[in-house]
Amino acid sequence: MQIAALLYDDYTALDIVGPYEILSRLPETTFTFVAKGAGEMRSDTGALALVADRSLSDLAEPDVVVVPGGPGSSAAAQDPEIQAWVRKAAGSARYVASVCTGAEVLAAAGLLDGLEATTHWGARDTLAALGAVPVERRVVLHEKVGTAAGVSAGIDMALALTARLVSEDFAKALQLGIEYDPEPPFDAGSPDKVSPEVVALVRATLGGGAAAG
Amino acid sequence: MQIAALLYDDYTALDIVGPYEILSRLPETTFTFVAKGAGEMRSDTGALALVADRSLSDLAEPDVVVVPGGPGSSAAAQDPEIQAWVRKAAGSARYVASVCTGAEVLAAAGLLDGLEATTHWGARDTLAALGAVPVERRVVLHEKVGTAAGVSAGIDMALALTARLVSEDFAKALQLGIEYDPEPPFDAGSPDKVSPEVVALVRATLGGGAAAG
Repeated sequence: MQIAALLYDDYTALDIVGPYEILSRLPETTFTFVAKGAGEMRSDTGALALVADRSLSDLAEPDVVVVPGGPGSSAAAQDPEIQAWVRKAAGSARYVASVCTGAEVLAAAGLLDGLEATTHWGARDTLAALGAVPVERRVVLHEKVGTAAGVSAGIDMALALTARLVSEDFAKALQLGIEYDPEPPFDAGSPDKVSPEVVALVRATLGGGAAAG
Repeated sequence: MQIAALLYDDYTALDIVGPYEILSRLPETTFTFVAKGAGEMRSDTGALALVADRSLSDLAEPDVVVVPGGPGSSAAAQDPEIQAWVRKAAGSARYVASVCTGAEVLAAAGLLDGLEATTHWGARDTLAALGAVPVERRVVLHEKVGTAAGVSAGIDMALALTARLVSEDFAKALQLGIEYDPEPPFDAGSPDKVSPEVVALVRATLGGGAAAG
């Protein structure tokens, strides 16, 4: 199985490294970071760069596609080369999945038309404007396309996708491998769980990266 | 604040990208990936490379150090250049933290002597042999040194550390920003929660990466 992880300018790194850590370990699988051109791709903070090992034209028919979110997702949703690649890849792929605002890239390619989909809590209106039906869920998996909520939700999505692509036991083994037995120190992962001051702090101080990544 | 994330051969990517996604967003902070030499550093699967933007000698006095685990942690724990850097950095740093088997790198530098510490569930004996006191906890934070359990536990650790370094509200804002409201599809994140078959599957098929990363 060939899994392609799309990188574009100003992606949010955890969106894609969460799923990578799981999906790169599926049996008989090659996991490849791709971008318009091969080479270093900086994330939204500027402090991290992942290497795209192949260009889009060099990996045209992946079996699985994963698209991260980030401040650059709107530009990626409007980029003709990226859009052409996503549309073509979706035609032959077994599964196409997004994390966070990566859903906009899928929606712009017409993959979420009229379908329930999830994204970062701060980006549901944008997703609706692109023809999807935003829902407040952590992970939404349809038969060939799936979406995850903000940033860290890609881990949950990738485990659920692993159960579909391989088996439930294999997904559990990978979950155990990465010791994903979460104990967040606070119960603050959703806007309805925190004070208005904390929501304001996210919007005011973090910019597009974490707020809409 | 200058935060340095150590990369070495065969690290596990999520160990360090989880904390990066949080700690790189602290106020007035520069987050930098460092390695013995600047440049591309491949992770344990071979499918991912992060860029080390500075060399160890180029960033000798960070305020915070984060060390990931991975199959290469034992070699890093025995590497004289890495060990010298960790010891020197720890002397002046405000905080030194590890994720997963990165605890071995700290223990080898004498930072965990006689202290309770956590690591990947499959690596506690190794950590004990290096002088630490392994405990079955997700995150252990002492005054100047802290450890997290396997791979994904770095996210929990970084949020707890943020509360110490900045404030509880800021940590909550970052948790909300990355929408860390986990919903693992299975309850399989700890060896006591899965069948012996699943534990055997981790050990047999995943190798050092996910099993001891």
